[in-house]
Amino acid sequence: MEEGYVIGIDLGGTKINIALADLNGNIILSEISATEASLGESHIISNILLLIESVLNKAKIKVENIKAIGIGSPGILDIQNGIIIKATQLPFENFNILRPIKEKYNIPIVLQNDANVAALGEYMYGEGRGSKSMVYLTISTGIGGAAIINGELYTGITSNALEIGHTVVKLDGDKCSCGNYGCLETIASGNAIAKKAQKIKRTSSEETVFNYKNITAKEVFIEAENGKKQYINILNDVYTYLGISIANLITLFDPDIVIIGGGIGNSSDHIINKLNEVISLKGFPPMCKDFKIRQSRLKENSGVIGAVALGIKELNKMFV
Amino acid sequence: MEEGYVIGIDLGGTKINIALADLNGNIILSEISATEASLGESHIISNILLLIESVLNKAKIKVENIKAIGIGSPGILDIQNGIIIKATQLPFENFNILRPIKEKYNIPIVLQNDANVAALGEYMYGEGRGSKSMVYLTISTGIGGAAIINGELYTGITSNALEIGHTVVKLDGDKCSCGNYGCLETIASGNAIAKKAQKIKRTSSEETVFNYKNITAKEVFIEAENGKKQYINILNDVYTYLGISIANLITLFDPDIVIIGGGIGNSSDHIINKLNEVISLKGFPPMCKDFKIRQSRLKENSGVIGAVALGIKELNKMFV
Repeated sequence: MEEGYVIGIDLGGTKINIALADLNGNIILSEISATEASLGESHIISNILLLIESVLNKAKIKVENIKAIGIGSPGILDIQNGIIIKATQLPFENFNILRPIKEKYNIPIVLQNDANVAALGEYMYGEGRGSKSMVYLTISTGIGGAAIINGELYTGITSNALEIGHTVVKLDGDKCSCGNYGCLETIASGNAIAKKAQKIKRTSSEETVFNYKNITAKEVFIEAENGKKQYINILNDVYTYLGISIANLITLFDPDIVIIGGGIGNSSDHIINKLNEVISLKGFPPMCKDFKIRQSRLKENSGVIGAVALGIKELNKMFV
Repeated sequence: MEEGYVIGIDLGGTKINIALADLNGNIILSEISATEASLGESHIISNILLLIESVLNKAKIKVENIKAIGIGSPGILDIQNGIIIKATQLPFENFNILRPIKEKYNIPIVLQNDANVAALGEYMYGEGRGSKSMVYLTISTGIGGAAIINGELYTGITSNALEIGHTVVKLDGDKCSCGNYGCLETIASGNAIAKKAQKIKRTSSEETVFNYKNITAKEVFIEAENGKKQYINILNDVYTYLGISIANLITLFDPDIVIIGGGIGNSSDHIINKLNEVISLKGFPPMCKDFKIRQSRLKENSGVIGAVALGIKELNKMFV
């Protein structure tokens, strides 16, 4: 194959991460810019187009050598047609994100759900290499998931497969953003952890350490490590319900690896150890007793490297 | 293709069901015999060989026109090598069931887990025809499952995928046969339903109706239909936990159909209506709100028709 490159774009609510890579997935150059979502659709699109130009210029690579672009996006997507139907963190509504980019670069451009893209990254260049049935979970503000079976993304019939954050794990649980009660997200997501911690009553001397009214999930982990009981209790619930959910996922999907990513999933080895404990204790013994889950290898870059992988995968499909 | 037939064998703990079918899956003749499991391995094998001879003789079909044999079996199997590793209802232990049959009939003979076989039957000749991602659940003495994705059985890495009966659904639940606590089987299996009902205290006049000490799951459904509160309570738990488990399965697998079979699953429309209620109420709205689950179309024949389907599938593979 002639000289060629792909571009990966990780479109997030707060930042856009772009990378230029060769056809083996080696990152040559990457750049980050603020999404500035509040400024609207066309502003974000110009930002993306400027970022593409910028990496091409800096790397001194000709436009004709760019063979494909992969884009990962949050929200509900129409992947076939490249449309962002709705995304809570982005101003797009029924917006065809591929069209304005395609108008400038007439090459294969592919859109995919951000969790799927990160999973693809881990499968092609991270912890999932060689896996035959891999499950990837992102534990962050929310909780999402993706599966790669025999090298292909398993997206299900409505493209919503692996929505593990919205499986019901507690009969009398709290109300979830989806309208339901007792979803895993109401216990183990960053949002839920922070919300529960914000409700804890504290002494005025404590208030000087953190702004407890707006305490974040990350700070809850710090408080728990400092031995504070109320925060430890919140996290024990997280480990229990997340651990059982992952154990049940193993019992259903029977994968060879489960990879945990996202802000909370990537945070420390501690969470993996705790989850392993719960899984080996509470999971179906034939499958869970010695099952090891792994942390994402690509960490915060899984999104942009996954977008690169998405572009390369599309290209390879064309040459099969 | 020349004239040809396949044989399907549904090997169960109490009976062996055998069918002779043409290559389109049309059943020409079928026969049932007691397994007589207590009489041991070699007795069961001679029974199977006699049954094959019997259907061939009755249908007046030459041995050379039998092109493949499919066998469905309970227990833990080594499918690749045709070995029944262990089965609670059968006397086999590390027994190669294919070898003695292969010695007599040197044609493709395939072994597969009974839930997988029933799923294959529903996919090829029953309620699952045309599905792209189908989940089949058998609710009987125990609870098992299988998935068919893009026309292929999804068995997972250890061949144990879809063991939904051993997903943990209740944190402080009863002890399960697998050693774990709170598995779905401890609430919604035939065994669990009967066991719970057997513990209910009754008046002596009630004892004249049923042998309550040995009341069966089937009789619990009758008592509930008669309006008896304690039995209704047992079944309400069944519907709630089974319904949520199926809703969660939909949220994870995102299938186009869920098919319910097995003695309890096939018992009445009532159970499907109840499960649909729970799923539409407790499931993740984008996927579960209008999701319809279906009862097995092949009912108690799903096993033997599935075994036929298994044989035909193996044959088709060879001609691809």
